[in-house]
Amino acid sequence: MKTTNFADRLTSLIKQRKSCAVVGLDPHWSPIPESIKKSAIKQHGKTPVACAAVIRTFCTELIDAVCAHVPVVKPQSAFFEQFGPAGVEALYAVMEHARSKGLLVLLDVKRGDIGSTAQGYANAYLGESEIDGEKFEPFPADAVTVNPYLGSDSVLPFVETAAGHGKGVFVLVKTSNPSSAEIQDLVVENETVYMKVAQKLDAIARDHIGESGYSLLGAVAGGTFAQAGEKIRRCIPNCYILVPGYGAQGAGAADLKPFFNEDGLGAIINSSRAISFAYAGKPYAEKFGEAKWQAASEAAIIAMNEEIAAQTPFLNRKTDR
Amino acid sequence: MKTTNFADRLTSLIKQRKSCAVVGLDPHWSPIPESIKKSAIKQHGKTPVACAAVIRTFCTELIDAVCAHVPVVKPQSAFFEQFGPAGVEALYAVMEHARSKGLLVLLDVKRGDIGSTAQGYANAYLGESEIDGEKFEPFPADAVTVNPYLGSDSVLPFVETAAGHGKGVFVLVKTSNPSSAEIQDLVVENETVYMKVAQKLDAIARDHIGESGYSLLGAVAGGTFAQAGEKIRRCIPNCYILVPGYGAQGAGAADLKPFFNEDGLGAIINSSRAISFAYAGKPYAEKFGEAKWQAASEAAIIAMNEEIAAQTPFLNRKTDR
Repeated sequence: MKTTNFADRLTSLIKQRKSCAVVGLDPHWSPIPESIKKSAIKQHGKTPVACAAVIRTFCTELIDAVCAHVPVVKPQSAFFEQFGPAGVEALYAVMEHARSKGLLVLLDVKRGDIGSTAQGYANAYLGESEIDGEKFEPFPADAVTVNPYLGSDSVLPFVETAAGHGKGVFVLVKTSNPSSAEIQDLVVENETVYMKVAQKLDAIARDHIGESGYSLLGAVAGGTFAQAGEKIRRCIPNCYILVPGYGAQGAGAADLKPFFNEDGLGAIINSSRAISFAYAGKPYAEKFGEAKWQAASEAAIIAMNEEIAAQTPFLNRKTDR
Repeated sequence: MKTTNFADRLTSLIKQRKSCAVVGLDPHWSPIPESIKKSAIKQHGKTPVACAAVIRTFCTELIDAVCAHVPVVKPQSAFFEQFGPAGVEALYAVMEHARSKGLLVLLDVKRGDIGSTAQGYANAYLGESEIDGEKFEPFPADAVTVNPYLGSDSVLPFVETAAGHGKGVFVLVKTSNPSSAEIQDLVVENETVYMKVAQKLDAIARDHIGESGYSLLGAVAGGTFAQAGEKIRRCIPNCYILVPGYGAQGAGAADLKPFFNEDGLGAIINSSRAISFAYAGKPYAEKFGEAKWQAASEAAIIAMNEEIAAQTPFLNRKTDR
């Protein structure tokens, strides 16, 4: 299993669960149900350890609520790091729990550095570390996000380490935020910077294609920019595209079509707040409310799967493909 | 103290110690002295905790050896993250130790993300987190490095949080590695991408200038590219430039001149391996060797200070300015 190409592992889970949705684990503090906070403070006081316990409990229960319906969860490292070392321990525990539930863990760390430092990050999240012949996996991730600003010698250590361990890499190409245009949309010889990045990716990705026809090297392209998505899709036919921006950030199911290949695969669609805090908004607030927040999240991910399936018949959960 | 502009804190320490050197804490595993490893394995077995103990001990002793001679240390987060949560705990302890020795801690994390996620990272490294009114500092850093690929809405949360807490931010402009050219040197309207980034920085930096005339917002520009350094220097007169690449990466003292302002300030020069593992190379191997590795590091940082002072009379340790 370990040396199966990551794209093959991902493709097989997508087909099995008939879902290309990714649930983002972004444990924003304020909407986490009060009952979880009270119990953590009671046990640990008003401490960083209590903060860590809160986000760990919340993410663990969220995973339990959605794990039957999706192939991948995407913990956002910042929300854990902001509680210090205790938060990072919670991240580890959440990742381990996700794996135990049969999910792939795409850790959103957006790391990027050079040479031996990039290798350090690759060891941390895609490889292994070693002491006197004894090896261990520092964090139980199956894939990470990587920032390309430092060039290909910052990306290759991740790709090579991933290749040796059945892991995946998603490189930021065009991000979903408004000021992504400042660098990514600059035009160089009639081509945007993000397309230059996509072209580099394509070349590297082709060396790491699995039986599914997809590469362990993927891209990140925001669902809020459908036109960019279409260009990127054509440029990197063998890459999975991780598409953030669906739901809370404003992209709808119809905006997603350009990110898929004709085979109905090639995109995984992330939603964070709209799933994790579904209980707090329409249409779930009335039916579920805070007390049944897990059921609201489950209903929201089922609805999301159906919305996306309507765009990509391959994922249609009503037929038996 | 906390609300003093970071650039003022830095400038005052540079003047006091007559040094603009930064000691990089990049605890590469293999050259760490065997005695440290043996003792950690004896105490903790061949475990991630033992790995963490090794790098913690090494960095702590390194800090003790160099703290009288420099204003800043720069832990490289990847080398800690690669040992999992235990490694991150070691990072925290090392940072705390550096602070207790009167050093500024510039944490090299190269984070970059959008909106609330960028704010999460800013909280983690420059601000604070809170539980039920009780505030705490997640990691004891004084400044961090930030990646600009996602645009200014990924940088501003760091800058604003830094401003409120007397902290600093160093944005990657032109990195020291060979393939930094792939994106950073692309030419847009007769200007490189890295100069576009520098121009954006300049505008933001001007809103955060302290009494020293310098801004809490700085830049990273590799010492291996002196010509780029000169252009960047002129573009961002109020920014400190963190210059990596000195020593092991190939830049010499003479290459550094363009990174300084005429006032002899404005640059901080990082050296990692050439200081931390000075014992293993010329000219220190014979005199000190592994048993006296700390003394070798101290000798190396004193020599580095003198080399740089020859380029910037302001730092001349032989006069009494």
